[in-house]
Amino acid sequence: MISVDFKLLTSATGIAVLFATSVLADPLPSWTDSEAKSRIMAFVDTVTDPDSVQYVTQSDRIAVFDNDGTLWAEQPVYFQLYFAIDRLRELAEKDPSILKTDVLRSAVAGDLETVAKGGTAALFEILDASHSGMTVADFSTAVRDWINTAKHPDTGMGYDEMTYQPMTELLRYLRDEDFKTYIVSGGGIHFMRVFAEEAYGIPPEQVLGTYTNVEYQVNEGKPVIVKTPGIAFVDDKDGKPINIERTLGKRPIFAAGNSDGDFAMLEWTTAGDGPRFGMLVHHTDAQREYAYDRDSHIGRLNNGLDKGPDLGWLIVDMAKDWSRIYTGTK
Amino acid sequence: MISVDFKLLTSATGIAVLFATSVLADPLPSWTDSEAKSRIMAFVDTVTDPDSVQYVTQSDRIAVFDNDGTLWAEQPVYFQLYFAIDRLRELAEKDPSILKTDVLRSAVAGDLETVAKGGTAALFEILDASHSGMTVADFSTAVRDWINTAKHPDTGMGYDEMTYQPMTELLRYLRDEDFKTYIVSGGGIHFMRVFAEEAYGIPPEQVLGTYTNVEYQVNEGKPVIVKTPGIAFVDDKDGKPINIERTLGKRPIFAAGNSDGDFAMLEWTTAGDGPRFGMLVHHTDAQREYAYDRDSHIGRLNNGLDKGPDLGWLIVDMAKDWSRIYTGTK
Repeated sequence: MISVDFKLLTSATGIAVLFATSVLADPLPSWTDSEAKSRIMAFVDTVTDPDSVQYVTQSDRIAVFDNDGTLWAEQPVYFQLYFAIDRLRELAEKDPSILKTDVLRSAVAGDLETVAKGGTAALFEILDASHSGMTVADFSTAVRDWINTAKHPDTGMGYDEMTYQPMTELLRYLRDEDFKTYIVSGGGIHFMRVFAEEAYGIPPEQVLGTYTNVEYQVNEGKPVIVKTPGIAFVDDKDGKPINIERTLGKRPIFAAGNSDGDFAMLEWTTAGDGPRFGMLVHHTDAQREYAYDRDSHIGRLNNGLDKGPDLGWLIVDMAKDWSRIYTGTK
Repeated sequence: MISVDFKLLTSATGIAVLFATSVLADPLPSWTDSEAKSRIMAFVDTVTDPDSVQYVTQSDRIAVFDNDGTLWAEQPVYFQLYFAIDRLRELAEKDPSILKTDVLRSAVAGDLETVAKGGTAALFEILDASHSGMTVADFSTAVRDWINTAKHPDTGMGYDEMTYQPMTELLRYLRDEDFKTYIVSGGGIHFMRVFAEEAYGIPPEQVLGTYTNVEYQVNEGKPVIVKTPGIAFVDDKDGKPINIERTLGKRPIFAAGNSDGDFAMLEWTTAGDGPRFGMLVHHTDAQREYAYDRDSHIGRLNNGLDKGPDLGWLIVDMAKDWSRIYTGTK
């Protein structure tokens, strides 16, 4: 019996059988049998069917995904801010004099309310203090150590366990259908690249995001890239289509986000010629995750809820459309 | 006889035979049988041999190439400047009032000496006047029209015929050996992307370069990316390793350039762990191309000639190592 199976697998017929099986298996098992799921699959079927007038060649099958709130959770604050604060604490233990301002002292004391009051300026101050003055390689090591040990304050889970199971299935499904999947996030590239390949199957060169200033230095004969204070590019709002165009030179055919920071990316993507798909993850599940939209200070979704449906975008209802939320829980 | 061949080609054995043939054929026929050629091939053999201790997995086989003077000619001035001036003439025909300064008037009059005296500032002035105020799509059309018709003042050849045949062979050879090939150039991304795929087999997302400012605009309901005045990033000198790290998140194992603008890129590439390859194209052929190095105002090569050999870089002698120069001539 074993030898027969083996022969079957290695024959051309066997390969066809295997293909048929994988096509028949549900590629999105953590999505309920809802309109959301069938709309995604109908789109993918259409653009990958060579006989369809809406067929899209492989090199144009570009899919872009926001990260915070789209591929993993983002409440009560962006996970990268937790990293920044933990890192700041670590640095301040060695040298308390680095805590020069109220914002930095509040951050280390865990007083996020004061930090929030400082708005974007406070956020950038914390980022500067925790993300600069080291090589990209050393920074990556710090992120890796953190993500392997730190726990989320609400769930007690590792942060990389709070990636969304339905979205990792969607990423894999699209890649199986010869899409190239990209992250396009307001988060930092040097932060996300550390875990994106393992968590999402997305290699470093397909991670676009915000980036800090850097310098090329030759230190004791060794050339390195060093992170320096200041943000060179903010990959949010209009910055998203701009960064995609700059990096890929192509307009995607599929874009997924969850907040108004993703509006321009979805707008640009879905305005292109031919078949396009825009989707917004709507956080509706206070029980299993978080429920927030128009009034949230993180991941505010207002414009997208108002205009998205008329633009043909899919609004994913997490509570209704996802049978499972996190990769880290069953 | 024909039917036998056809059967052979479609059988598994036939495919193996075809593979064997292509491996035995010379992948670099326009390179003379010199040390240069054998060093390149020895490197590729080593990193692609699974039994070698210096074996490099496919995802790390990243090769980066400068464009001007490395993949195509750059004399007497960068080809993009010819485009800019031709474009400026075209725009000035419709509206002469755009020629506001001496630099712009000199450029349109073909007085490159005055332009050269203005240095980088003059260059940027011409770029601003000719490269902004239109969508990326419209700019691409203008570049395509130009490259299909314009002729080089010295050779009378089309500019895309002045790509180097030995380098297109090298690009193809590396890709056949599962390298991913990138352009990393001081030239503009929106200029190069128009011809890079056809000329070099390099798709838009693998073209890194200098980029102008852009804006995301929604014009009459249509989202577009518009080129605006000013340069957002200059991809030269230290900018090259910085841009590679930012875009790829990886250090290449192979880098090719021709001027001191490429020094940092080669330095960073070849300082990495494991096998690395750096090469500089030395323009030594006044008869078939141009001869210039330490004193040239375009493509100055000084530091690279002094330090490159000690750093193990290959210095390619065009006159000696290349049996053919341009793709457009036999």
